[in-house]
Amino acid sequence: MATLFEKICTGEIPADIVYQDEVCVCFRDINPGAPTHVLLVPRKAIPRLAMAQEDDAALLGHMLLTVGKVARLLGVDESGFRLVINNGPHAGETVPHLHMHILGGRDLEWPPG
Amino acid sequence: MATLFEKICTGEIPADIVYQDEVCVCFRDINPGAPTHVLLVPRKAIPRLAMAQEDDAALLGHMLLTVGKVARLLGVDESGFRLVINNGPHAGETVPHLHMHILGGRDLEWPPG
Repeated sequence: MATLFEKICTGEIPADIVYQDEVCVCFRDINPGAPTHVLLVPRKAIPRLAMAQEDDAALLGHMLLTVGKVARLLGVDESGFRLVINNGPHAGETVPHLHMHILGGRDLEWPPG
Repeated sequence: MATLFEKICTGEIPADIVYQDEVCVCFRDINPGAPTHVLLVPRKAIPRLAMAQEDDAALLGHMLLTVGKVARLLGVDESGFRLVINNGPHAGETVPHLHMHILGGRDLEWPPG
């Protein structure tokens, strides 16, 4: 069964996409936790970070470089942003498809949840 | 001027190190925000995520794979953990040396700060 995020990647389910390339897709969170809140997901269906394999290293590196690119695109690279990956029950992970939250546009508190 | 984290990587300043390899070092946060709270930093002094360069992709991918490895080592891979990277003022970034926070051992709230 394809997850919600896989369906967004293939275009089966619409989303407010802000960036995409051959590896990943970035779109606005429908339930934003900050003025700027997007999700960056790989097209490949990796269920969660801790389940990524050695041969996913290039994909993961590309995603982290893309975070900076997306932040510049959305104008939060100078003001600042927080990147969050939830992995498993304690973190409140929802969709079992690796996704990076990028939040910005306001002061973010500590600890992070 | 070497940052605090560079000095921890070289051993000049002591830290409670839980894992290290040729690319990165992981140690306990001295001001933990959760029962399990460690920092994973690259030995290379990248000031912040958005300043990483294309040729840092392999390093960044290695770090994200190491997050899963550290989570298993600390016993929070099944219960869950949150990975956080603060970039710039709004995120409350402190030390200008890229670092990944890994938090677990309790339910983490949403939004993440």
